[in-house]
Amino acid sequence: MALSERILLGPGPSNPYPEATAGLAAPLLGHLDPEFIKLLDRACDRLRTVWGTANPVTLPLSGTGSIGMEAAFANTVRPGDVVVVAVNGVFGVRMCEVASRYGAEVIRVDHTWGEPVDTERVLAAHPSPAIVAAVHAETSTGVESDIAALGAALRSRSTETLLLADCVTSLAGIPVAVDAWGVDIAYSGTQKCLGVAPGLAPFTFSERAWERRVEVPPVWYLDLGLLGAYVHGAPGSGGRVYHHTAPTAMIASLDAALARIQEEGLDAVTERHRAVGARLQEGLQEMGLEPFAAEGHRLPQLTSVRVPEDVDSAKVRERLLTEYDIEIGAGVGDLASTIWRIGLMGHNARLDRAELVLSALRRVLER
Amino acid sequence: MALSERILLGPGPSNPYPEATAGLAAPLLGHLDPEFIKLLDRACDRLRTVWGTANPVTLPLSGTGSIGMEAAFANTVRPGDVVVVAVNGVFGVRMCEVASRYGAEVIRVDHTWGEPVDTERVLAAHPSPAIVAAVHAETSTGVESDIAALGAALRSRSTETLLLADCVTSLAGIPVAVDAWGVDIAYSGTQKCLGVAPGLAPFTFSERAWERRVEVPPVWYLDLGLLGAYVHGAPGSGGRVYHHTAPTAMIASLDAALARIQEEGLDAVTERHRAVGARLQEGLQEMGLEPFAAEGHRLPQLTSVRVPEDVDSAKVRERLLTEYDIEIGAGVGDLASTIWRIGLMGHNARLDRAELVLSALRRVLER
Repeated sequence: MALSERILLGPGPSNPYPEATAGLAAPLLGHLDPEFIKLLDRACDRLRTVWGTANPVTLPLSGTGSIGMEAAFANTVRPGDVVVVAVNGVFGVRMCEVASRYGAEVIRVDHTWGEPVDTERVLAAHPSPAIVAAVHAETSTGVESDIAALGAALRSRSTETLLLADCVTSLAGIPVAVDAWGVDIAYSGTQKCLGVAPGLAPFTFSERAWERRVEVPPVWYLDLGLLGAYVHGAPGSGGRVYHHTAPTAMIASLDAALARIQEEGLDAVTERHRAVGARLQEGLQEMGLEPFAAEGHRLPQLTSVRVPEDVDSAKVRERLLTEYDIEIGAGVGDLASTIWRIGLMGHNARLDRAELVLSALRRVLER
Repeated sequence: MALSERILLGPGPSNPYPEATAGLAAPLLGHLDPEFIKLLDRACDRLRTVWGTANPVTLPLSGTGSIGMEAAFANTVRPGDVVVVAVNGVFGVRMCEVASRYGAEVIRVDHTWGEPVDTERVLAAHPSPAIVAAVHAETSTGVESDIAALGAALRSRSTETLLLADCVTSLAGIPVAVDAWGVDIAYSGTQKCLGVAPGLAPFTFSERAWERRVEVPPVWYLDLGLLGAYVHGAPGSGGRVYHHTAPTAMIASLDAALARIQEEGLDAVTERHRAVGARLQEGLQEMGLEPFAAEGHRLPQLTSVRVPEDVDSAKVRERLLTEYDIEIGAGVGDLASTIWRIGLMGHNARLDRAELVLSALRRVLER
């Protein structure tokens, strides 16, 4: 059965960079091959660059983006720990759920969906939580929150609280600066602005988080102590200690995409996302469509827009898919049929993609 | 940096089938695309065939083989549950570790490494454990254990105990018959006899295991209730409920490899592994090398052989890698420098690979 050639303009996955696809299909290396270890080291270095961090514990986890969230809480939450979670969309809700499973006492700070996280309200929720968690780029609403401000406010108050940021949709799409912002724990996914197929969760963990980590986390597969011994070498062992078989094809693909990003320049890449997203948002408004996310906080890489009242949301998406091979996203939860989400991420952050989806959407809405 | 083209004859990963590589590089589909859902359904059906099961809960988990072990225990162990683990190699030891993290009272039944699991001893360990766990094909030693016998003995005693089998290195290499053997929980990895890159853990779970599962397992990412709502559809929802972004490229690759296995015929595939492994083991003995695994219990797809006393194990592996681009495996743990492990798995289960590694090894040992 031949598969369709989709143009993936939903909330992810996006179409990978050609270099990333070539990396997937390259001759496979074993996970203990010296060449692979070198490639892995390089990929981790390149990840440090896009994260804006010098954290030694920076690595791609062997699962899709959500495994980053799982690893974040699994390695830091002790039963009874207070975890303040800023909730302004689906992924904030999910953080509450995951943190609870590790026994956290979750304090949920709810925001109107479509609005950014309010630093003051988050800080007011508890004087000294173990962790404050927020989503940088809410994939469910297309909203950017100011993690820099949250980090600065937290740091001015205490050095005890760890700051956790979900960067699944932000990394390599808008500026991310883990060290400068004082973020302790962050994770992303490969299938958004990094321009790689889904399958890995880039992850970074500060030295402060490392010192306070759970030494034997409940989840063996995500035990950062054991993972570190493979990815970064075990202290005193002189080498890498096998933990689990790394997904070598996916890592080669990630490395190839990171090389491309490095070649273009990270600033140029985020500028490309900005410019293309601005054009899309302008074009949608020219068509009379109303943005969903609050003005001034709209992600360029993922645009949410209200479905006009008399339009069948699912029908439009279906026509885009079947007539144009274009995938855009529905909303989730309460927003399922009232917003669309259009992603211009990674390799798809291009003006031709913006014009294409604008044109196709205009045609479908007209007829 | 150009990467070497390795011939992967270690304990895995093995070189993927060409169809699997093409599947990885095919145009990417979104995880909610109707075409992808159809592909996923088909891949799950094909997995049922290779597992020998009608279990509705049969799916590829989004991580490498070890995540299958994690999911197995995370979804079944309640604190205090007695779990009897047959240990005859590294992966038995790992099962003890993982089960313990979920609060199991582990009863470890140790065997000499290189020997198969002794059904009588495992049964004698406890009259009514919640779970009995054993490794079908011990990757660390090259030994096959008789899961059919273990299942029959368990079933004749009780229907309360769940039987868990690690099939990472066995699936599609030697016969596996989950339903006929009475196995309740089994997992594998794609990078061995299935002939796919590492990145997925095929998993199957009996209806009896489902009824007794932990409803809210500690690990959100591996919650079979939530995963099932995406992979198989949620009862009453009329559709698939998003859980996490599935690794669509890897799943397309798995589906393509399963199609190839189906075309060749599963019996023909296991027969090919058997014949090629027999030739390798014969050839190694002709060279004067001594098998490590007990006679009558040697895996054809993964052969362990003792390193001759005056030979530097690491040096030989290094020469095979640098001079011939051939990867074979060292031993692990106490066996690190005393055995080699040679895999002829999936696409590498071919006579030309057997002769190649025999010839190259002979040359390296001679000079």
